[in-house]
Amino acid sequence: MAGVTIVPLEGIPEASAGDDAAALVGDAIESQTSLIDGDVVVVTHKLISKAEGRVVDLPDDGPDAHRYLVEQEAVRIIRRRGPLVIAQTKHGFICANAGVDRSNAGQARAVLLPEDPDRSANRIRIRLQHRFGATIGVIVTDTFGRAWRRGLVDVAIGVAGMEAIHDLRGSTDTFGKVLEVSEVAIVDEIAAAADLVMGKATGIPAAIVRGVAWRPSDAGITPLLRPPEEDLFR
Amino acid sequence: MAGVTIVPLEGIPEASAGDDAAALVGDAIESQTSLIDGDVVVVTHKLISKAEGRVVDLPDDGPDAHRYLVEQEAVRIIRRRGPLVIAQTKHGFICANAGVDRSNAGQARAVLLPEDPDRSANRIRIRLQHRFGATIGVIVTDTFGRAWRRGLVDVAIGVAGMEAIHDLRGSTDTFGKVLEVSEVAIVDEIAAAADLVMGKATGIPAAIVRGVAWRPSDAGITPLLRPPEEDLFR
Repeated sequence: MAGVTIVPLEGIPEASAGDDAAALVGDAIESQTSLIDGDVVVVTHKLISKAEGRVVDLPDDGPDAHRYLVEQEAVRIIRRRGPLVIAQTKHGFICANAGVDRSNAGQARAVLLPEDPDRSANRIRIRLQHRFGATIGVIVTDTFGRAWRRGLVDVAIGVAGMEAIHDLRGSTDTFGKVLEVSEVAIVDEIAAAADLVMGKATGIPAAIVRGVAWRPSDAGITPLLRPPEEDLFR
Repeated sequence: MAGVTIVPLEGIPEASAGDDAAALVGDAIESQTSLIDGDVVVVTHKLISKAEGRVVDLPDDGPDAHRYLVEQEAVRIIRRRGPLVIAQTKHGFICANAGVDRSNAGQARAVLLPEDPDRSANRIRIRLQHRFGATIGVIVTDTFGRAWRRGLVDVAIGVAGMEAIHDLRGSTDTFGKVLEVSEVAIVDEIAAAADLVMGKATGIPAAIVRGVAWRPSDAGITPLLRPPEEDLFR
């Protein structure tokens, strides 16, 4: 196996409403490399949310305005403690503040999640495939906390062109035994890998992950969402 | 930024009790590359558990023997539904089956977590640093499920030489605003990245992750464990 490389896409300017996210990412790709079949382009949702105008001006930088916005974005509050709210978004994600984020948005502004991150991913994918003549996957990411473990990791909130879950069921392990544990959240692993070059303070909102074996799919992020009836923690 | 590369370490034989995990990994490194300062060597716990003799012969391959072992390894049951048990291990991890794994162990055998994954990581680190003359980090991984999201990801269960959490608090974002969301679970992101070349069915139990910026630390995995009093999901 040849290994995996993660290439940070530098020089992408701050996006604002009406910007063309696919063009911003594509220009950065063209200025430093190109795309080849099998590449996965990872884009933080903030770039997309800003380009799609999903930015809200708050009356002030205090907690009340922010809390109001969180309640608006949430379809269900899962847990609440002091200022911390864990909520389910309309997309089905469970995360802090229903995805409402005040960092990297300028003072007294908040960035919301894209309306439909799969669709956002697919728009970028179609444009980049056409521009670079390669068959690729696109993942849109956000930064989530986890139950039980401190620290944040980037995860996928939208995906186009590739499977969200890599299903190994029926594969055998190195002893020939059928694998029991077999559904790998491949888009979350790619999102986490990409964050190693994007970081939170670097201003790099996109990366190319090259060398991962994945299968094509049009199912989007839905297969990665655990249905409430099989979830033990909501 | 130069990007990150993930190199699968091929040709590592199946380990058994008494094997020298550091030598097995070191030989694989030497046969295909070397180590340089800043490299992170990622090793799945199964290699280490087997080398450390943390393998249990079960009387049969049925559910009862397995369940008994899980109860033995758990210090606390967090949730139970049918055959599924989410439990806290003595190390403080919350995961399915208290880390007891029946795959990749041969029929009617189970692999337990290492007694002290930080210590296992540190032993490997000291040996590899001496052998290759480079300052490195070592991460020991396992494959965990998550609340709310389907599919499994590899996470860190032991770490040596490097910080578990990369603390950005006090850093500013690209607008100069102080970051609120700022503790990155860098070892979990590296573990997930490494799994992209290791996979579950490939028999590749180790990888080198090169090009990540990290800070040295001797604190091990503990900073990554959320204390019960601040945990909303146990």
